[in-house]
Amino acid sequence: MRSEYDRIAGQNVERLAALSDGIFAVAMTLLVLGLRLPAARAVSSEGELWHALLGLRPELLIYFMSFLTLGIFWVGQQTQLNHLERSDRDLTWIHLGFLFAVTLTPVSTALLADFFRYRLALVIYWMNLLLLGVLLYASWGHAIRGKLVRDDMPAGTPAAVCRRIQIAQGLYALGVLLCIFAMLWSIGFIVLVQLNYVLAPRLPRRHKTESEGEAK
Amino acid sequence: MRSEYDRIAGQNVERLAALSDGIFAVAMTLLVLGLRLPAARAVSSEGELWHALLGLRPELLIYFMSFLTLGIFWVGQQTQLNHLERSDRDLTWIHLGFLFAVTLTPVSTALLADFFRYRLALVIYWMNLLLLGVLLYASWGHAIRGKLVRDDMPAGTPAAVCRRIQIAQGLYALGVLLCIFAMLWSIGFIVLVQLNYVLAPRLPRRHKTESEGEAK
Amino acid sequence: MRSEYDRIAGQNVERLAALSDGIFAVAMTLLVLGLRLPAARAVSSEGELWHALLGLRPELLIYFMSFLTLGIFWVGQQTQLNHLERSDRDLTWIHLGFLFAVTLTPVSTALLADFFRYRLALVIYWMNLLLLGVLLYASWGHAIRGKLVRDDMPAGTPAAVCRRIQIAQGLYALGVLLCIFAMLWSIGFIVLVQLNYVLAPRLPRRHKTESEGEAK
Amino acid sequence: MRSEYDRIAGQNVERLAALSDGIFAVAMTLLVLGLRLPAARAVSSEGELWHALLGLRPELLIYFMSFLTLGIFWVGQQTQLNHLERSDRDLTWIHLGFLFAVTLTPVSTALLADFFRYRLALVIYWMNLLLLGVLLYASWGHAIRGKLVRDDMPAGTPAAVCRRIQIAQGLYALGVLLCIFAMLWSIGFIVLVQLNYVLAPRLPRRHKTESEGEAK
Repeated sequence: MRSEYDRIAGQNVERLAALSDGIFAVAMTLLVLGLRLPAARAVSSEGELWHALLGLRPELLIYFMSFLTLGIFWVGQQTQLNHLERSDRDLTWIHLGFLFAVTLTPVSTALLADFFRYRLALVIYWMNLLLLGVLLYASWGHAIRGKLVRDDMPAGTPAAVCRRIQIAQGLYALGVLLCIFAMLWSIGFIVLVQLNYVLAPRLPRRHKTESEGEAK
Repeated sequence: MRSEYDRIAGQNVERLAALSDGIFAVAMTLLVLGLRLPAARAVSSEGELWHALLGLRPELLIYFMSFLTLGIFWVGQQTQLNHLERSDRDLTWIHLGFLFAVTLTPVSTALLADFFRYRLALVIYWMNLLLLGVLLYASWGHAIRGKLVRDDMPAGTPAAVCRRIQIAQGLYALGVLLCIFAMLWSIGFIVLVQLNYVLAPRLPRRHKTESEGEAK
Repeated sequence: MRSEYDRIAGQNVERLAALSDGIFAVAMTLLVLGLRLPAARAVSSEGELWHALLGLRPELLIYFMSFLTLGIFWVGQQTQLNHLERSDRDLTWIHLGFLFAVTLTPVSTALLADFFRYRLALVIYWMNLLLLGVLLYASWGHAIRGKLVRDDMPAGTPAAVCRRIQIAQGLYALGVLLCIFAMLWSIGFIVLVQLNYVLAPRLPRRHKTESEGEAK
Repeated sequence: MRSEYDRIAGQNVERLAALSDGIFAVAMTLLVLGLRLPAARAVSSEGELWHALLGLRPELLIYFMSFLTLGIFWVGQQTQLNHLERSDRDLTWIHLGFLFAVTLTPVSTALLADFFRYRLALVIYWMNLLLLGVLLYASWGHAIRGKLVRDDMPAGTPAAVCRRIQIAQGLYALGVLLCIFAMLWSIGFIVLVQLNYVLAPRLPRRHKTESEGEAK
């Protein structure tokens, strides 16, 4: 009976991955569709179109930041699922909660794009980031405690995954605190943090020791 | 010729699962996008934004309830498909009907969010829940009668799946009846029922006997 | 070099199926979202909500018809792909054309729902159905001519697939001609044809001879 | 530890393909939904509906061009992924950048459809095409340099993939330059280029020598 249960749970990881890819795909594509293009009636020359599009710069930056965010959390979730030997119902529901936070991202992004001068919009956006991080952290903790991970996982991986989430969330919180000075600092700082996570994996190749700590 | 037919039908389960994951992913992501954010023109201070967002609480609760609902039915459908050895055209069409009810969910959710003081909106929402349950029940009955399930399925599984759907639908019907007293009681009760199905799987660990009855 | 090419083409069938499931999932979910719910401001009693929703009956029937249509063509495309041993670029592009017709379906459905008293809207809807059928027919012809199908396919399958498409398209054309008398006859007839294709597979069980001709 | 890393990376290619299929599916389906159908109130006869729909011809041509574009880049990305033995984080992020450009396509298409008399809209649309091409080119270069491709790949494939992207981008740039004469020439030329890439694979069958150069 146990093997039957394990087999079902094993299927779950595949279908959970399929549902996750679907939800990330829809959320990532809908992000940019939230952009309100200038109305055709309001534009009567190339110059006016240019100015109307230039006015969309803050929104574009925010949508780009959210795409990076979703990409980072997609890679993060995938890394966890790749290490799982099997799943259980609790883990599935932690990930469904995580996916709920993913579906909130286009909404909190649209809110921040509409109200990018308001701290409340930034705090709500950050709470979305925090929820994504907390649930991914909880998922990892549950997988380790429930012995759902593969036997061949290197000994250092659990601590590395936890550290990665803690540092990222620390930087996001720092970014939000910068809105005490100016909203643009906050958004710019978070964009830089995200770009760092996107581009960082190039560094380990040059610094071997660091790469080993990372890969463990 | 029979093995050829079975092979095609076997493929069906995989592609049915893929289509299901796609439809659930789109429906789950579009749910929250139905939320109408406050218009930028109507807000001129942090306080006004705060009040405008506070006014969205009933809608948010309803969208959260629908996400839980879709999550519960996704897990339920997945459990059934995992037990299938093969499929046939009738089963495929029962599941396409089930997926039609899934695509109706964002619409009935938007209706309930817009008209959460109207009993008619709640009754329509409940009819959507009922349709999801009836078709999942019909799918299971057809699979058992048509011997489409795996040979290694434990003897108690069919009855457990049926009981689960019957009890859930009984609780939803009870929740709708509560609207005789107040709409909020109905919505609150259904949210509690859904949260119970999300969190319940933690209990069996503490009560071994119950867990065995559940797992069978 | 030939085996390398075949391997890539084999992969294509899987990814073509994945893209198809994705496009069908989005199109099926967006269909019903085209429904315009009554505005909250325009409704002030349960009775008014009831009447506003009753007024949506023609649109609901049309969306239901389109969901059945997409379901039928999804099953039809799946049956073809299941019989393929490998694919080539031409076949991929015929299917991409077919998927383009699938993405047109929510648009032609919305047009018919908005203008269900206009013959032009029905003719455009029918041209969409025709395009779906013609491309599926062309895909099958190309697969047979190019020897892309599995060796173990029963001898009668190619003719059965062609006949199925021809008869369905004949019935759709007949349905459109009925608009000479009344639009409702056309829409009602096409709904009945679609329901027949959904429910028909139950019949072969009772009539053995017919079932063999069907299954071959 | 290396085999563990490779296994995870191998998974990445599959999930990257699944995310890509999802994003392409959503972007392809949403393209045509950007089409603004005539309002029911503005139409009171079959003739008026006919004229209103005829007025949508430029938009329809542009949406068709974008569907072809997404189809071509989907086939192009798929061909690359099929040749990969494994992936790494850098390659994943190049493809996430490519997918970001895919999500921009419905937006730049809607912009061009709204402002098809403005050169700026065409230049932005072309920058989207350029970004898609540059990232696909970068992905291939990274895969070759990082030895991520399969051992059994024919020797001529890398050069053939690069040449294909270079020629296509050269033709797109030429098409945009034609807007010096007339916008319609530009759009018409790009549509012809895309149709050529869709239909071209039929030619090799007649010219055997060319086919070998293509297949290598």
